[in-house]
Amino acid sequence: MFLHKKELQFEAKPDSPNPLIAKYLQELIGEQYGEMSVAMQYLFQGWSMRGEEKYKDMLMDIATEEIGHVEMLATMVARLLEGAPVEDQESAMKNDPAIGAVIAGMNPQQAIVAGLGPRPADSVGNPWSGGYIIASGNLLADFRANLNAESQGRLQVARIYEMIEDKGVKDLLSVLLARDSYHQNLWATAVKELEEKEKSILVPSTFPRENERLDIAYDFYNFSEGKESKKGSWAKGKALDGEGEYNYLKEPKVEGKAPKLDPVTPKMYGTPPAK
Amino acid sequence: MFLHKKELQFEAKPDSPNPLIAKYLQELIGEQYGEMSVAMQYLFQGWSMRGEEKYKDMLMDIATEEIGHVEMLATMVARLLEGAPVEDQESAMKNDPAIGAVIAGMNPQQAIVAGLGPRPADSVGNPWSGGYIIASGNLLADFRANLNAESQGRLQVARIYEMIEDKGVKDLLSVLLARDSYHQNLWATAVKELEEKEKSILVPSTFPRENERLDIAYDFYNFSEGKESKKGSWAKGKALDGEGEYNYLKEPKVEGKAPKLDPVTPKMYGTPPAK
Amino acid sequence: MFLHKKELQFEAKPDSPNPLIAKYLQELIGEQYGEMSVAMQYLFQGWSMRGEEKYKDMLMDIATEEIGHVEMLATMVARLLEGAPVEDQESAMKNDPAIGAVIAGMNPQQAIVAGLGPRPADSVGNPWSGGYIIASGNLLADFRANLNAESQGRLQVARIYEMIEDKGVKDLLSVLLARDSYHQNLWATAVKELEEKEKSILVPSTFPRENERLDIAYDFYNFSEGKESKKGSWAKGKALDGEGEYNYLKEPKVEGKAPKLDPVTPKMYGTPPAK
Amino acid sequence: MFLHKKELQFEAKPDSPNPLIAKYLQELIGEQYGEMSVAMQYLFQGWSMRGEEKYKDMLMDIATEEIGHVEMLATMVARLLEGAPVEDQESAMKNDPAIGAVIAGMNPQQAIVAGLGPRPADSVGNPWSGGYIIASGNLLADFRANLNAESQGRLQVARIYEMIEDKGVKDLLSVLLARDSYHQNLWATAVKELEEKEKSILVPSTFPRENERLDIAYDFYNFSEGKESKKGSWAKGKALDGEGEYNYLKEPKVEGKAPKLDPVTPKMYGTPPAK
Amino acid sequence: MFLHKKELQFEAKPDSPNPLIAKYLQELIGEQYGEMSVAMQYLFQGWSMRGEEKYKDMLMDIATEEIGHVEMLATMVARLLEGAPVEDQESAMKNDPAIGAVIAGMNPQQAIVAGLGPRPADSVGNPWSGGYIIASGNLLADFRANLNAESQGRLQVARIYEMIEDKGVKDLLSVLLARDSYHQNLWATAVKELEEKEKSILVPSTFPRENERLDIAYDFYNFSEGKESKKGSWAKGKALDGEGEYNYLKEPKVEGKAPKLDPVTPKMYGTPPAK
Amino acid sequence: MFLHKKELQFEAKPDSPNPLIAKYLQELIGEQYGEMSVAMQYLFQGWSMRGEEKYKDMLMDIATEEIGHVEMLATMVARLLEGAPVEDQESAMKNDPAIGAVIAGMNPQQAIVAGLGPRPADSVGNPWSGGYIIASGNLLADFRANLNAESQGRLQVARIYEMIEDKGVKDLLSVLLARDSYHQNLWATAVKELEEKEKSILVPSTFPRENERLDIAYDFYNFSEGKESKKGSWAKGKALDGEGEYNYLKEPKVEGKAPKLDPVTPKMYGTPPAK
Repeated sequence: MFLHKKELQFEAKPDSPNPLIAKYLQELIGEQYGEMSVAMQYLFQGWSMRGEEKYKDMLMDIATEEIGHVEMLATMVARLLEGAPVEDQESAMKNDPAIGAVIAGMNPQQAIVAGLGPRPADSVGNPWSGGYIIASGNLLADFRANLNAESQGRLQVARIYEMIEDKGVKDLLSVLLARDSYHQNLWATAVKELEEKEKSILVPSTFPRENERLDIAYDFYNFSEGKESKKGSWAKGKALDGEGEYNYLKEPKVEGKAPKLDPVTPKMYGTPPAK
Repeated sequence: MFLHKKELQFEAKPDSPNPLIAKYLQELIGEQYGEMSVAMQYLFQGWSMRGEEKYKDMLMDIATEEIGHVEMLATMVARLLEGAPVEDQESAMKNDPAIGAVIAGMNPQQAIVAGLGPRPADSVGNPWSGGYIIASGNLLADFRANLNAESQGRLQVARIYEMIEDKGVKDLLSVLLARDSYHQNLWATAVKELEEKEKSILVPSTFPRENERLDIAYDFYNFSEGKESKKGSWAKGKALDGEGEYNYLKEPKVEGKAPKLDPVTPKMYGTPPAK
Repeated sequence: MFLHKKELQFEAKPDSPNPLIAKYLQELIGEQYGEMSVAMQYLFQGWSMRGEEKYKDMLMDIATEEIGHVEMLATMVARLLEGAPVEDQESAMKNDPAIGAVIAGMNPQQAIVAGLGPRPADSVGNPWSGGYIIASGNLLADFRANLNAESQGRLQVARIYEMIEDKGVKDLLSVLLARDSYHQNLWATAVKELEEKEKSILVPSTFPRENERLDIAYDFYNFSEGKESKKGSWAKGKALDGEGEYNYLKEPKVEGKAPKLDPVTPKMYGTPPAK
Repeated sequence: MFLHKKELQFEAKPDSPNPLIAKYLQELIGEQYGEMSVAMQYLFQGWSMRGEEKYKDMLMDIATEEIGHVEMLATMVARLLEGAPVEDQESAMKNDPAIGAVIAGMNPQQAIVAGLGPRPADSVGNPWSGGYIIASGNLLADFRANLNAESQGRLQVARIYEMIEDKGVKDLLSVLLARDSYHQNLWATAVKELEEKEKSILVPSTFPRENERLDIAYDFYNFSEGKESKKGSWAKGKALDGEGEYNYLKEPKVEGKAPKLDPVTPKMYGTPPAK
Repeated sequence: MFLHKKELQFEAKPDSPNPLIAKYLQELIGEQYGEMSVAMQYLFQGWSMRGEEKYKDMLMDIATEEIGHVEMLATMVARLLEGAPVEDQESAMKNDPAIGAVIAGMNPQQAIVAGLGPRPADSVGNPWSGGYIIASGNLLADFRANLNAESQGRLQVARIYEMIEDKGVKDLLSVLLARDSYHQNLWATAVKELEEKEKSILVPSTFPRENERLDIAYDFYNFSEGKESKKGSWAKGKALDGEGEYNYLKEPKVEGKAPKLDPVTPKMYGTPPAK
Repeated sequence: MFLHKKELQFEAKPDSPNPLIAKYLQELIGEQYGEMSVAMQYLFQGWSMRGEEKYKDMLMDIATEEIGHVEMLATMVARLLEGAPVEDQESAMKNDPAIGAVIAGMNPQQAIVAGLGPRPADSVGNPWSGGYIIASGNLLADFRANLNAESQGRLQVARIYEMIEDKGVKDLLSVLLARDSYHQNLWATAVKELEEKEKSILVPSTFPRENERLDIAYDFYNFSEGKESKKGSWAKGKALDGEGEYNYLKEPKVEGKAPKLDPVTPKMYGTPPAK
């Protein structure tokens, strides 16, 4: 169960209203790698945990922090929309081209639907989707997903940081950048710990490798003309998993035949066979 | 541009038709981490590449391989559906409870929409979505996304491998398991190479760290009662990025105030202010 | 079955073309609470009705009216797009900053996809979704859904009314405002009638209350620090359902234990248990 | 900001594993009116609040409670999946028709994707969508949305209560039924309070009614043949808003003309005009 | 505007309840090519029409008919669900394997959400989406879309016709098959009429062909190894548009170069350039 | 399996960067009828083919070509975004109204998410969906779907061609226009070939027509007041299928009765029956 404290963990006040920044920040709220995603992803991972308690506790710590991040961003968006030029737009646009651009660029749903508030959606209006998150029951897999999410997340915050000038918003972004740094450190550390514990970098580490086609498990196939890819560290030498040797094949191995499907019952009314 | 060869890279023939397995394999075709996702993700990453040629070449190699994986799975699904009990289902169900279960469990769209063929969707019928993939223009971020995708992907293949008994399908899964192993090795290797090259494990490595709140960039906040999380390697000692020291806080730091939003124009028709 | 009459019920002519208004009106056509939603919601409720004929007849009356509302809005959007600055945009933008803002703010799909016509989507382009509507087979539940929809709907119309200046569009909005007023009256009246008939304000009224945990059915739990919520009419006194007494708890009741999940079969390849 | 306590507020333990119930409970987690929806809806409403503090505090109380409801359901689903027949399904189906039905009816993603855990999705697999929720900035509108959500929610819980027999699951449903009862009482009470305060049942109450077409604001139009709807309390007598008189029209009023759209620029390549 | 008549155009009564058929019929209600799609597609095409009145009138005739088709299917689904085994499922499954299969195969949302009624969704539960339909403002393009929709639609009806045995449902399907036959005839006839009127089979017929690369407008490129495609009527001889000559190229023409993208501003924090 | 060649088939270089055109081109990449759709549609049709080899080979030829079209457009979008005004937007907007309009009109995700690159989405940001495509196993049905897709596709390209002035982009559009011309010719030719081979224009041609209601298979029902539709070639004379005679009915035939649904079990908690 959860408790709510009234204070924001960090302050969320813009220097001045700005509907365009309010649109950009939706990305950090409701996109594939926004705060709703990391909050929900860590919650579901925590709730599904069948392993060591310390991982569950940690997941719930970070998940709970992230709900607070959504709250700070939602508050910031609401404040950025105060004073937005929503009335009598035609006159406003005619009188001032700068206001015209703001009106043209605003997210209309923040006004019409939310009454100048935040939306559970991204910067182009796609609603947040449960299809963005993963909780697989395998921690190594999921911590990689988390490291990925925090990497994309910090990248997006950094971009918005450069796109805007509002000092108050940048102060909040500085906080998010720092927390995303920590969370990248955290997940990378946890990944390393699990890889060492499981003695494997492969997910899942417990699958009996004799059941996979080990003879093709270290091959690089040159499917795209050009041999630049041969220069990479993935194309020769000992594999990172410590078990095999990378092997570059100029031509992809081919074992299969051109498939020829059998007809199915005529009651499916596919194309009738040629006579 | 692309060329198509008629041969499947590996064989895709079940021992016998089986509509339930045909439903499960949809997961590997059209889910968040299925083959359509990795193919599309690597293609968009390759097409957006502004960096070193060897990464682009490699991305296009693997992307192109993955389109072939979709092809093998699509072929397998089509064959698993041959002979599915689609006609006169009521009689069929009454006569044989085993067939009844198959009819009940089948994906109805594979019959009604696809005429006993594969769908660009997952095992419960969600159509594949462009919202699943990422191509950010930052390779370290994206290679982590790729390592994540191959980890979840191999995990799902391993699960289906145990759920079924058809030898022919398992042969194909053995191939996919091996290729997912290689691709995990590949992305992990490329991630390591980039981290070394960029001298940082943080994405993006070039963001000036003085612009983030460095004072809170190594804190673990105990947001979830219980101190199990303190035992993790993320809670004390030198941070993995080599720059800071992890710091466990029993109580989360709080800097913000309880937010109080200002009213907006009455023309937005929010709740009228209390008098 | 349905019949179509050529006349619009009310006129739908703007004073002058205006692509920005054409974008806003998409909200009233294709959003969660737009006219497509209410039309479809009332249709499915009517088609699923197993109760008194007068409710079914009424649902079909209003549903059919609402399809006509979509028609009026679609017509209005088509007319607002006549003369939109779609050709040679680069020159147009350079010559006139006001036109530049219009071009920047236009919905590109109304031009590229619909050839300057309406779309079955909202103002940011999300296609209308069957996930927006409800027909549950319980009229009290559904009439509350309808009262909700007409409340949000009228609110959105009122906002757009203030955002624009076109007299012709405002004339149509005046009609929609009036009909939404009537429909709020209608659903509130029907809700009241059903509550009286079922002698309960709880949905579903027929569920045997001894099967719910009546001892916690009137508790307010203070999950968010601060006691302002204690002042509400929901926190003390006789409950609106006439059966219980509201009860404010400073601390939420806790009965459960911290959950500890059991491991599942290792064939699911979750994280291996710590040794 | 939020804090997490390890205890579940109420216990969440099934009497025995049951994958079909695990599928049904997804509806209560991730559907349009499931616990993710109410949690997110109340959070966004609270975060967007520009009005009286007591409403905000109350919204945050209930929102925070609801996150805990998702947690209880997620835990229950994870436990219901323990021991699910996921291995070697073909043999299992052949040996026992009852197990065959379970295998056929299971949600394959709970196994393949979540490793026998819950999903942020409904019972047929649609991922939760931000498009389900509303936070409009108008409390009367939103509290009606909340009353609607709790009505549909309790109805769905009641149905599942009758569909299953597991005592442990029913115990949790009894809790949810009671809380949904309270929340229906709560929102109905708050709606009543606001209607009295705003002296209107119409949302938004502050829109100047002279700007709507008051002459048609109390008309019932008989759009669906048959006059049963005339018998309703919405068709005659004083309107519930206390301002008008309901008026039943046998034939809908018609003011508009059959629309004739003007051609647009030929550069949009619509159908060329007939000559 | 629209009017509703109480009668169904054709009868919609199953011989006996059958929840599996109720699931299949959802495909005809809410899928990409179901009746909701054709109704909405023809409505939007009619509402967007800027051309000859006879096409608009015809579109509105067929659109209005199709809303009635949704109504008949919705009614049929509601009746097929009467008597569905929704109570105490565990006991029911144990007692009778045939009922077990029905319970396993049922659409749980038809019970839990709709109270044994139809849903605005397809047979696997995807909600109907506005993304399924098209109204482009170009009638030849759109009539081809309509011919496509009626072709896929009749195919799906034919398949379900063979999958089931209920005489009453088959009677309704016979009606739909006949109407889909007529509508295929209708759209094919209208397409032919427009092609003759516009003197072109190419959409859009008015685009000045000198603005396209006419030198490559009749080439078939052999992108997929194997020369079977050379045998088709599309690979040699006079083109169907009467203007060019089909031309089979064994090797695809290549004019472009391998693309090399320029770096963008470092403030986008892409991968830093190699030194 | 597939191979990738480094060269673009045709050049993809704009004359100058232009973020608005970069937004429009997303439509051609990721919309319902964009290049991702046709590529995926033809791939799934090819992979599902159970008929003559020449059709499969042809489908794979065109599908493979279309993946290359996505590549060319993705490359073009990346180049159009070079130099986009993404930094310090507030100052930039104030200094220059033309740049203000560009900033307002840009797709924010192309910057924030993709780092100035293409997205697997349309011009308003909807991610590409597997719900857009069809592979039914019936070639005549599917080739009509393909003809439809290429018609809508060429129409959209033609519109964008007129909206922009960049010579380099127009050169690529000229290529796409020509290829869409060829593909319209191709599918129309293949449709004709199949219609002749199957001796029917009706899909599916093999369904026994005695199982449909032939007595209503040639009726036009006048559902929309007005008789303009009677003038069409679909309303009288020999039907295009050569089997029937079109028949215009001033009043739609009505055979059904007003439906009255039976109550279902009270355990579904629908509205209780009136007493």
